[in-house]
Amino acid sequence: MQFTSAHRLDDGVVERDFTLGDLPGTLWTPESAAPVPLVLMAHNGGLHRREGRLVARARQSAAYGYAVAAIDAPGHGERPRSAADDQHRADLRRALKAGEPVDGIIDAFILPLVERAVPEWRATLDAVLALPGIEGPVGYSGWAALGIRLAVAEPRIAAAGFFAGGFVPGALREEARRVSVPLLFLLQWDDEGNPRQRALDLFDAFGSKEKTLHANLGGHAGTPWFEVDDGDRFFRRHLR
Amino acid sequence: MQFTSAHRLDDGVVERDFTLGDLPGTLWTPESAAPVPLVLMAHNGGLHRREGRLVARARQSAAYGYAVAAIDAPGHGERPRSAADDQHRADLRRALKAGEPVDGIIDAFILPLVERAVPEWRATLDAVLALPGIEGPVGYSGWAALGIRLAVAEPRIAAAGFFAGGFVPGALREEARRVSVPLLFLLQWDDEGNPRQRALDLFDAFGSKEKTLHANLGGHAGTPWFEVDDGDRFFRRHLR
Repeated sequence: MQFTSAHRLDDGVVERDFTLGDLPGTLWTPESAAPVPLVLMAHNGGLHRREGRLVARARQSAAYGYAVAAIDAPGHGERPRSAADDQHRADLRRALKAGEPVDGIIDAFILPLVERAVPEWRATLDAVLALPGIEGPVGYSGWAALGIRLAVAEPRIAAAGFFAGGFVPGALREEARRVSVPLLFLLQWDDEGNPRQRALDLFDAFGSKEKTLHANLGGHAGTPWFEVDDGDRFFRRHLR
Repeated sequence: MQFTSAHRLDDGVVERDFTLGDLPGTLWTPESAAPVPLVLMAHNGGLHRREGRLVARARQSAAYGYAVAAIDAPGHGERPRSAADDQHRADLRRALKAGEPVDGIIDAFILPLVERAVPEWRATLDAVLALPGIEGPVGYSGWAALGIRLAVAEPRIAAAGFFAGGFVPGALREEARRVSVPLLFLLQWDDEGNPRQRALDLFDAFGSKEKTLHANLGGHAGTPWFEVDDGDRFFRRHLR
């Protein structure tokens, strides 16, 4: 793990870009003498890990008292995008626009993406936990499809916050039954791209004995800011 | 308004029973030099306002910084129960047990109960806001059917937290569209007596532009304790 930049921000948070082999990532850490727990913040949807809203979330959680790590998913952010990725994205947009079923496209596009991303996140987990002042147990926040596989495969993940979850491949919707960590599932009630009933069915499917659903009015990008704070408090109950 | 008892509790909260005409109630207030907002905590289901879990909630919210007022609903707690109340309750239990529709019973039982309770709560609101150190705006917490009518009728109510809402009469489910205050709607995912889909439909119906749903695994009485804290924080966003 090589740090390539470091900035101390207004809120006292230190933001460092890193590379882990070819993998580009960012780590946000609070000013803290004591070791802090780690939260992995993952996203898909073609977003860059430097997207403004993601960075603001990461900074707030770091200021609250977590180390927050993000890497770009395959084909996202700084990473090369294949012609196949572009084709899948175009197929998905077209099917959504036409109101056609998207299950086949999601299975063909998202499942391989998750399978490539999981070992990258586990390598990131190893590297970040080897740094001084950062310790387990570990929280996961964001991209639901990846989080399901990671929560099942990775015993160091002790609690997970998932967002939306409308576009989770069938195999991972099944795998949700095997997720057993405490869960905070966040959805937008009028999320144009994430059908509400699919998200409610996914919440119902999770095997976790402790799971909480938070739903707010509005579209995909309209999650109220207080949910970041609720997420930090959820992790405080499970990572300390 | 006559206070009939006063106790200072371990957490610094002062608990006072009162009567307002024939109406029995309890007021919990924090140790605070500054004026505090008021939260009305209402319940139905035949419960006494002194039921342990309700009292624990009221005390925690008072310790957090609210004046919390509760009165017994008609036929509840210390108040006389009519033969008609007993008959409605028996009908409801029998229909639920037999898996028969309960809409008719709920309309006949709950709607008149709400109509009797609303002026009692408004009188309580007047009396409590006339006390020194307690000020508006006012929050409402608990019984959904009453809260819908009260939130529509009473402009001093600035935010509302509703629980469950499976047994809301048809007229009040319609009236939910006219509720416009910020809302926190809390439901138990496996609430035996409150069908999930009815509760989700009610959440969908509320006219409020800002509304949040919190759902947790488990039955009617299984709401996790952290939801009390979430409710206090919800009111802090809207009552200050």
